[in-house]
Amino acid sequence: MSMLTLKYYLEVPASSLDNNKGDIDRISAGLKDVTGTRSIEWPLSTIETASKVVRSSGGKITVTVWPDGDRLNVITTEAGDTTGLNFGVAIDIGTTVVAVELVDLTSGKTIAAEGDVSGQVRYGDDLLTRLHFAGQGGVEELRSALIDTINGLIARVCTDSGVTSTRISAVSAAGNTSMTHTFLGIDPSPIRFEPYTPVINHVPRLSAKELGLDVLPNATVYVFPSVGGYFGGDLISGAVASGISQAEEISLLLDIGTNVEVILGNKDWLLALAGSAGPALEGGVAECARRAAPGAIERVVVDRATLEPSYKSIGESPAYGLCGSGLIDVIAQLYLSGLIDSTGRFILEKKTDRWRTINGRTAYLIAKGDEKNGIPPTYITEKDIQNLLRTKAAMVAALTILLNSVGLQLDDIRRIYTAGSFGINLSVDSATAIGLYPRLPAERFTQLGNGSLLGARKTLLDSSMTAEAERIADKITYLELNVHPEFMEIFRSASYI
Amino acid sequence: MSMLTLKYYLEVPASSLDNNKGDIDRISAGLKDVTGTRSIEWPLSTIETASKVVRSSGGKITVTVWPDGDRLNVITTEAGDTTGLNFGVAIDIGTTVVAVELVDLTSGKTIAAEGDVSGQVRYGDDLLTRLHFAGQGGVEELRSALIDTINGLIARVCTDSGVTSTRISAVSAAGNTSMTHTFLGIDPSPIRFEPYTPVINHVPRLSAKELGLDVLPNATVYVFPSVGGYFGGDLISGAVASGISQAEEISLLLDIGTNVEVILGNKDWLLALAGSAGPALEGGVAECARRAAPGAIERVVVDRATLEPSYKSIGESPAYGLCGSGLIDVIAQLYLSGLIDSTGRFILEKKTDRWRTINGRTAYLIAKGDEKNGIPPTYITEKDIQNLLRTKAAMVAALTILLNSVGLQLDDIRRIYTAGSFGINLSVDSATAIGLYPRLPAERFTQLGNGSLLGARKTLLDSSMTAEAERIADKITYLELNVHPEFMEIFRSASYI
Repeated sequence: MSMLTLKYYLEVPASSLDNNKGDIDRISAGLKDVTGTRSIEWPLSTIETASKVVRSSGGKITVTVWPDGDRLNVITTEAGDTTGLNFGVAIDIGTTVVAVELVDLTSGKTIAAEGDVSGQVRYGDDLLTRLHFAGQGGVEELRSALIDTINGLIARVCTDSGVTSTRISAVSAAGNTSMTHTFLGIDPSPIRFEPYTPVINHVPRLSAKELGLDVLPNATVYVFPSVGGYFGGDLISGAVASGISQAEEISLLLDIGTNVEVILGNKDWLLALAGSAGPALEGGVAECARRAAPGAIERVVVDRATLEPSYKSIGESPAYGLCGSGLIDVIAQLYLSGLIDSTGRFILEKKTDRWRTINGRTAYLIAKGDEKNGIPPTYITEKDIQNLLRTKAAMVAALTILLNSVGLQLDDIRRIYTAGSFGINLSVDSATAIGLYPRLPAERFTQLGNGSLLGARKTLLDSSMTAEAERIADKITYLELNVHPEFMEIFRSASYI
Repeated sequence: MSMLTLKYYLEVPASSLDNNKGDIDRISAGLKDVTGTRSIEWPLSTIETASKVVRSSGGKITVTVWPDGDRLNVITTEAGDTTGLNFGVAIDIGTTVVAVELVDLTSGKTIAAEGDVSGQVRYGDDLLTRLHFAGQGGVEELRSALIDTINGLIARVCTDSGVTSTRISAVSAAGNTSMTHTFLGIDPSPIRFEPYTPVINHVPRLSAKELGLDVLPNATVYVFPSVGGYFGGDLISGAVASGISQAEEISLLLDIGTNVEVILGNKDWLLALAGSAGPALEGGVAECARRAAPGAIERVVVDRATLEPSYKSIGESPAYGLCGSGLIDVIAQLYLSGLIDSTGRFILEKKTDRWRTINGRTAYLIAKGDEKNGIPPTYITEKDIQNLLRTKAAMVAALTILLNSVGLQLDDIRRIYTAGSFGINLSVDSATAIGLYPRLPAERFTQLGNGSLLGARKTLLDSSMTAEAERIADKITYLELNVHPEFMEIFRSASYI
């Protein structure tokens, strides 16, 4: 297992009349000796610095490289032994939120992590608006906004950890197909139209300076491949994170965010379904959804007689927001109290002072919050409930189609990995209870969290995972959810509590 | 034998719901099918254009690539079948003169050639002045002056031939070590100091845009490797042109210009001597030296009694300038007439009205010229004579040292290739007569002309020659002429007519 970039300390002999090989050639010879690699590639911009460093340091230098098959590509040369100072950045390029981790490539540890709303959001909350904007000549603005966000996050993880950005030699980035395109400055708008063909799926290895990233100019940038217009590198990265493509046993990866994305398979085959599930998931997760952090409401009971809620927040902290299990509890309790029907619609005839109008929409108020202390109210709307039901329906439909198409039963799935912004907020018990996760024993479940970020980190620490990602993208059989004939039928029948 | 760059016509299937691979991925698949190459590399800047071209052309496209081992690197993509339109540029980066040839990579023919004084000359006629200037921070000016000259020449060969510069996908350039450094924008000044170590000998493959060359931005640029500070890529290119590194028989390459440079060997070994031969060659060729073109004086007889010259010019055209054989004739005739001694000094006691003072120097006037019609006078100075004698002495010394060091006799040399600005002007008979060329049968000689340019052209037409050039640079044993103990001794004893 080898990191995506490596550092080698060399003692390069001085030149003499008997050995007046060029400075670069003597460093190359030293690298070949140490690594056994046949070919050393020097970007033009690295040459003069390397020459000065080798001359001024008495030949005691550290060379940072990224290996590529039988080649070593030089990233930078430093005086002295700096082999212990090598860092990488993992990036999850979300449509809404961008997350960055700074990884110490010596210890393998994540030493700082930051996230922020993508600067692209100001060009449209949803993907389709941005695709349209890109098609109107807005690609460069989208690219620049995204790169600014990423550079801001890199600056923050550097500040957090005290690492200078010129020690970052490796970047691994995963995003959906549109995000990947804009990250590269490539117009993604062609994927709006059937057959949703991307400009590029397998992305070449790039240098940081080509993309405008504020790390070492020749830092290597790995970008996860996409499979189709609506099946992107974030999913492939999640698959890498889970390891399903290398396992004997049959596993399932569920990524639940604004899209429903499912991969089923093992080391021999992989089958995937993905798509923007019709109208189901447009709104994303519930308005008051929160991570399972102190203060998030995790248990809710609605009194059958008074229709008043009571709740428990994590750590008994001042309550606001619903973590995933809280959200599912609310829906179950509202149904059992007769406040919603099986399609998730409010039954407003049931009288309770908890019906409120918030932001112009009818809501059921769970916690009033504390305006003075800046704690917002926690509530749920019909849209939140229906989103969850539709997400569940899409998951059920997707899984049914996948299992049917390979002739497997639910119980054949030995491991389930959950990822995505929805998945992070759900306890396995709650999610299986409502049918969002398949009803399988809890011990088969593993929560990956941000699978996209995790896969990106994995490639930083094990360069062979980049080849694995490309292999997954090549071998996976991908069914477009939106155009699958069975989908809507199963979807409709599963859209109930 | 394969050109340095290749074009492939493809018919790329349109995408569909069943095959919605990215545009780039479908082109890559097509290229892999046609070429059997495993890996297709796409520079970021080629991607969006290729996508637009494949979509707008109904999939009928031509891709230009440069192969590199098991990889194909994409240069550009065009609509339709343009496989017959592929061009390369060979460049000889001389210290004084830059020469460019435009080569049709389909027919293998040179279709235009141009030369011009290097823009670097304004920073110093000689190399040492420019090295000093480079060391004072002048590298960027030197680089820019040289690139401007080259771009001017590329524009001219394009105009001459009607080829657009965006059809030039390959560049091969050879120059001495300092010229190669400034071409890359790298400070060559460290080679002034013992042990004359270059920054870099083996140059990475570059793209035209990195260097600022006005051809296809991703055109591949091959730069010949150097061996040491005073043994550059121009010599290696000459060796490639001659083929001596692939021959069974022992051959000799003589490059006579402002330096004396000699390579002796065969496919198994190569031994070289080079250097600025002390004070010998600083002045370069004679003031009135000219190419063997119409009007150049090629035969001279000096009447022993009257001391008046008579001459014959090439094509009986109005005479001015001395081609190489004319120059050697003059020296031999002046000696036989008692006008110079065996060290090349004028014997001014011999009375003739041909002694003139021209540009402040004493000269022997050969032809008066015709001022009205713009034809300058033709004459010879002591310095011209002594330069030739010193060049001859340096050649004799170099060859003696080489032969002695491998225990060979002169007659063991089966082929002699002559190159360089001096070599171009010399007939073999004249040069062997005066001892400048070794006294071997005329049929063993081949005049390469501009060996550096010829080798560059050879790599355009046969990409395996780039590997051969690297191999030559690695295997050659190089003796620094200036520091060789025997040199001055032999040099002095050979400095006579």
